[in-house]
Amino acid sequence: MRIDILTIFPNMFAPLTESIIKRAAESGLVKIVITDLRDYAQNKHRRVDDYPYGGGPGMVMQAQPFFLALKHLRQAAEPPGRVILMSPRGKPFTQQKARELAQEERLILLCGHYEGVDERVREALVDEEISLGDFILTGGEIPAMAVADAVVRLLPGVLPEASTAEESFADNLLEYPQYTRPAEYQGLAVPEVLLSGNHQQIKQWRRKQALLRTLISRPDLLAKVELTAEEKDFLAAEARRRKVDLL
Amino acid sequence: MRIDILTIFPNMFAPLTESIIKRAAESGLVKIVITDLRDYAQNKHRRVDDYPYGGGPGMVMQAQPFFLALKHLRQAAEPPGRVILMSPRGKPFTQQKARELAQEERLILLCGHYEGVDERVREALVDEEISLGDFILTGGEIPAMAVADAVVRLLPGVLPEASTAEESFADNLLEYPQYTRPAEYQGLAVPEVLLSGNHQQIKQWRRKQALLRTLISRPDLLAKVELTAEEKDFLAAEARRRKVDLL
Repeated sequence: MRIDILTIFPNMFAPLTESIIKRAAESGLVKIVITDLRDYAQNKHRRVDDYPYGGGPGMVMQAQPFFLALKHLRQAAEPPGRVILMSPRGKPFTQQKARELAQEERLILLCGHYEGVDERVREALVDEEISLGDFILTGGEIPAMAVADAVVRLLPGVLPEASTAEESFADNLLEYPQYTRPAEYQGLAVPEVLLSGNHQQIKQWRRKQALLRTLISRPDLLAKVELTAEEKDFLAAEARRRKVDLL
Repeated sequence: MRIDILTIFPNMFAPLTESIIKRAAESGLVKIVITDLRDYAQNKHRRVDDYPYGGGPGMVMQAQPFFLALKHLRQAAEPPGRVILMSPRGKPFTQQKARELAQEERLILLCGHYEGVDERVREALVDEEISLGDFILTGGEIPAMAVADAVVRLLPGVLPEASTAEESFADNLLEYPQYTRPAEYQGLAVPEVLLSGNHQQIKQWRRKQALLRTLISRPDLLAKVELTAEEKDFLAAEARRRKVDLL
């Protein structure tokens, strides 16, 4: 997979040169190319923003640098790729979307800034707008990193298979609590069942804990979980005790 | 405000040394301190992870580096701060949460990794768990940057006041389309109303466009918006035409 990122802050992308993403790039599983939109500014001050038509606060990013950079990048490499604008106006990013994007051969992520991006970029270039969630950031760079990170870790060969199967959201439950050595630290002990070696009991304990964590933090997810009668009783009792509404 | 970030990838935080965050730091409005958890590992290999008790795939981050780093940071500076673990198990981050955190004098963000963090970190140190959304990342670094970015831009003096008032989600509507020069580019023209100089008409057009964008991308937000009778009719007609369910 190739990921192009178009930004006015190319130095921000250090997160994509560390950790698992770094290893994926070194193994040739992904190529991440950062393009500075200011290189496509059509003035000697490398300005890429201007005042909004119709007035209002802030500046708007101009269309031309996006048009010119995209044209150049598409001449430089195949295939044309799926163009995604990182924007608070997009649909919220989800794990399902990450899986869908991991099927693509090339992603081109556009990072917006200031009060917004000239609408003609959306009209003519953008296949899809994605938002990280209901919060505002200073620009699209951190969202672009989040999307690149979420997608790259799903590419075959990047992570051991077991790691992506047994994780949060894969079964609509939050993860159960994990413990590692030492067995006691600062007066806090590891639950005995985890030291028991009884795999059946460990499995049951983890399932119950995952249900409980989901009830506390994300009861909305429970509607999608297949529950046994016993699990339903357990959750109903915990919900009453904690005054959580079960949907 | 002071923001401490505890991580095993300190080099990832370049995004917080650019753009608006950089200017906020230079103006003394925020101090962001990145701490490498490996400096608090208790072995000569600087390892901070170990196998999970009870078995299962992946590694778990140990409790000690978090306990020791936090103790040291609290001795080094006041106040003790609000400790937030970036974790897929947390409640989803929202603009409301950003506003709440912007009231704090000190935030301490813990970046998880691998399959998770020893549960005793949560039990003994963490005030709150925050998730960016329903997607999985390789670690808590990008989420920590997102939280820091969203919070810092809300601190008084960081942005011009008009920028934070008239923006996405502030009124539960997505932003209206913006255009800047040139008035025509690649055959695409700026809507005439924006060139008219008629501020009343521009305001109405922008409101209608914001309603339309919200209907298309985030109809769930419309339930919270105060609408005139005319706006309700407009949205109902557009919803029928676009086959969107209005809640």
